[in-house]
Amino acid sequence: MQTRPLYPPFTVGVDLGGTNTVYAIVDKTGYIIDKASFPTDTPSVDVWADILADGISGMIDRHSLQGDIVGIGIGAPSANAMTGSIEGSTNLPWPPPVPLANLMEARLGLPVKINNDANAAALGEKAYGVAAGMNDFIVLTLGTGVGGGIVCNGHLLSGARGFAGELGHVRFPFAADRVCGCGRKGCLETVASARGIVETARRIMAESNKETILRDMSSDELTSKTIAEAALSGDAVAKEVYDFTGECLGKAAAEFAAFTDPEAIILFGGVAKAGDLLVNPMREAFGKATLHLYRDRVRFMVSSLEGANAALIGAASLPLL
Amino acid sequence: MQTRPLYPPFTVGVDLGGTNTVYAIVDKTGYIIDKASFPTDTPSVDVWADILADGISGMIDRHSLQGDIVGIGIGAPSANAMTGSIEGSTNLPWPPPVPLANLMEARLGLPVKINNDANAAALGEKAYGVAAGMNDFIVLTLGTGVGGGIVCNGHLLSGARGFAGELGHVRFPFAADRVCGCGRKGCLETVASARGIVETARRIMAESNKETILRDMSSDELTSKTIAEAALSGDAVAKEVYDFTGECLGKAAAEFAAFTDPEAIILFGGVAKAGDLLVNPMREAFGKATLHLYRDRVRFMVSSLEGANAALIGAASLPLL
Repeated sequence: MQTRPLYPPFTVGVDLGGTNTVYAIVDKTGYIIDKASFPTDTPSVDVWADILADGISGMIDRHSLQGDIVGIGIGAPSANAMTGSIEGSTNLPWPPPVPLANLMEARLGLPVKINNDANAAALGEKAYGVAAGMNDFIVLTLGTGVGGGIVCNGHLLSGARGFAGELGHVRFPFAADRVCGCGRKGCLETVASARGIVETARRIMAESNKETILRDMSSDELTSKTIAEAALSGDAVAKEVYDFTGECLGKAAAEFAAFTDPEAIILFGGVAKAGDLLVNPMREAFGKATLHLYRDRVRFMVSSLEGANAALIGAASLPLL
Repeated sequence: MQTRPLYPPFTVGVDLGGTNTVYAIVDKTGYIIDKASFPTDTPSVDVWADILADGISGMIDRHSLQGDIVGIGIGAPSANAMTGSIEGSTNLPWPPPVPLANLMEARLGLPVKINNDANAAALGEKAYGVAAGMNDFIVLTLGTGVGGGIVCNGHLLSGARGFAGELGHVRFPFAADRVCGCGRKGCLETVASARGIVETARRIMAESNKETILRDMSSDELTSKTIAEAALSGDAVAKEVYDFTGECLGKAAAEFAAFTDPEAIILFGGVAKAGDLLVNPMREAFGKATLHLYRDRVRFMVSSLEGANAALIGAASLPLL
């Protein structure tokens, strides 16, 4: 069956999402050897942990990899690497704190590392993706929310309590009139998340009579993805939405550069699939806005990790560090 | 003569300023064993390096510390730790780049580390000051300019090319109408530097007829120091100047926290001597502005390094890391 050579060390990656929990055995190159999933909404976190542990054990057995797995990595919302627990409000069915690392270590007898989605993405890019060999970069995860994972001097920044890199909640004048889920105004997330992009489209449509295919879409149909598709097929308003979003990201990146002098800023997650629609205006705005020290020195990239599996592969990289 | 016990390792610290070069032998506790200085403005950088090397050698001999010095640390404007050179424009008499580390290593046969003033300050606070034992903190140097030194996960952040921590050039709405020396508008430095504080005083005086002792001061007399003295002696306008400055610093710190989740933010440099005049409004503004994750979690402190020698002691800490 297996035609591709496999490269140890092997790890297990777990992507704990609000709807589904996906897990996989991954090799050193980020290749997914086997993958499975189950619904996250279980009667209790113990039941969830039992299902996951049984699934992982069975998968390891099937591939005769007993003794060859160096660790388990779990990417989860609000996961704190320092405590091994999920802390703070999430859209998971269990109340925080959830002692995720302890639960899984007890069941599997393997070291378990957890981290939030953005930090797992940053480490995944370093282990398997476009940041291979880089010691200084920032990953911005653009999805339902906006997160940040910062690697500087070769280290993932965690901070005093594990809350470093909350770049979706840095505030900017371009978002001053947008209310964030955190209760404040002006957060980058209000513009650069999937929801922020839809909001931008609504605003542009409300402020003008410009013709656009977006006006024909129902509330359910209007998403960051359909807007990107419209932009790619030549819709001027949809293009304007992504130009604005990219410009905002470039202005944000211009300030972020002053913190850690990154070699690259990498876009990750569903919204990042827009690719050049975002990256081109982002690069241009960055050049205009940033301090001379960083101008023309920062590369803008999009994650190379396979779309649907990117978070999973990121999680699988956690035990490698 | 020497009544205080001395604790090895010993280092030499050099504070290279535009006017004077100060050097000293410092012990592990940050105690200055001996200190001397000479004017920086020499015919060439080689002459400067000769004078400094002779001075340091003589000082080591006088204290019979031959073989006991572990290294030389030099704090200098625009010093790049990664290259060992001064890069970019400075107010020094020699054109950049200046290969400072090489020049001194060749003359003294000791390892030489250089860093910019703000990074030296951060390491000095960790080695000898209020950040002893801390792994996550930010030092803001408030003087002629504003700089930043960031320690996260126990490491001083340098970034891809040594330009991490340029926090004086992060831009904020509260400074949107102020032009910075870097050619952009809105940099924190335009408000929180010594010059920024004088500018704030001028603006408040121009916008109102409020009585204040500051109006009686000549252009030369009106400095961040005399404004602080006026505030402490009850002058309402001078107090307003520092309230505004502290509020701006608090708003800036509120965003900075999202990058590295610091345990403390430490004010350093001439302007920081205003102490509670700055720290109290800063703490209050931070609490109002920051994300809930950081609220009530960050300590605001003023450098404990002896005022006139703080930069020198910071430089002396460089070889210890």
